[in-house]
Amino acid sequence: MEFSSKLLERAVNEMSQLPGIGKRTALRLVLHMLKQPKEQITMLAEALQSMRNDIKFCKSCNNISDEELCEICSNPNRDESVVCVVEDIRDVMAIENTSSFKGLYHVLGGKISPMDGIGPHDLNIQPLVKKVEEGKIKELIFALSSTMEGDTTNFYIYKQIQEYNIYTSTIARGISVGDELEYADEITLGRSIVNRVPFESSLKS
Amino acid sequence: MEFSSKLLERAVNEMSQLPGIGKRTALRLVLHMLKQPKEQITMLAEALQSMRNDIKFCKSCNNISDEELCEICSNPNRDESVVCVVEDIRDVMAIENTSSFKGLYHVLGGKISPMDGIGPHDLNIQPLVKKVEEGKIKELIFALSSTMEGDTTNFYIYKQIQEYNIYTSTIARGISVGDELEYADEITLGRSIVNRVPFESSLKS
Repeated sequence: MEFSSKLLERAVNEMSQLPGIGKRTALRLVLHMLKQPKEQITMLAEALQSMRNDIKFCKSCNNISDEELCEICSNPNRDESVVCVVEDIRDVMAIENTSSFKGLYHVLGGKISPMDGIGPHDLNIQPLVKKVEEGKIKELIFALSSTMEGDTTNFYIYKQIQEYNIYTSTIARGISVGDELEYADEITLGRSIVNRVPFESSLKS
Repeated sequence: MEFSSKLLERAVNEMSQLPGIGKRTALRLVLHMLKQPKEQITMLAEALQSMRNDIKFCKSCNNISDEELCEICSNPNRDESVVCVVEDIRDVMAIENTSSFKGLYHVLGGKISPMDGIGPHDLNIQPLVKKVEEGKIKELIFALSSTMEGDTTNFYIYKQIQEYNIYTSTIARGISVGDELEYADEITLGRSIVNRVPFESSLKS
């Protein structure tokens, strides 16, 4: 791609570094920006920079936060004895949207994935083990993706905390609400039968 | 979507103003940026701002440029008597990539589209008419999209310059190179028969 302007070329190159944005999409976005008021682009640029420079991570759960402790960890109404282990900040947002969890979170920042060069020490696992050691946690809920990497990470953490004898659980795998049985894959369907729940409990939610 | 940080929320909101980027994509991009070095985000922010603030439009053809006149208009080897009328800077880049045009361009900046509130006076049409008036142009090639808006714009310009009696042409519509006939739509196929060219001329390219 040949550009008639170095400024344009630089902007397109920088934008196309973002994941899922190729040169063509970057050019489309940048040409759109050219039609916007200058103030708006200044606002965008400043929002990105101040986000990158000033954002903090909660020192307890590693969630994104503007303070030392995030809103969830500093909320006295949440049950600090139940901790949900998630990969990512997006998972915290997804679970919060369901309003069905009143405990705290622990954000690992990824999952163990030797293929991508991510080992246990690249993740926020030791602080979790320390929290368990201190004896405040009664239940640990594993809410990682149901992939080989997720399962490996679950098992690694499980091994680390096994000696402290706390209750560990994992979120239910089964048929999605609204899904038809015949289209479900066999592993999911099999698990949903093995982990069946009393019919009365399904009436509550 | 609820955010645990105002900085994050602002960055996501600003990013989701861009066309084709919703809140979820914006969040994915912004979380990716958080993992990048601070310098890279500073470079991105600066590239966008300096592009928006310092970019110029060629005073002759309205193409994006770092100088008063763009590289194409200031190139003495290009034929200034043939002018190709295009909607957008991207069209200039697309035609330049083919290396088959040695004239100059004229970028309209859009097409007449009453539905979107874009009339002839919102486009860069008058400077084109003025160029024709001055008598430097021998041929005008219309290379707008083959849509109702494109056709309307072509016709509007044609009416404005009709009195000056210059040669006007439009890019050929027909079957794409490599396409199979049976999958072509009937209007395109019809036009490709009406506008057939001598067989010898197809051997040259």
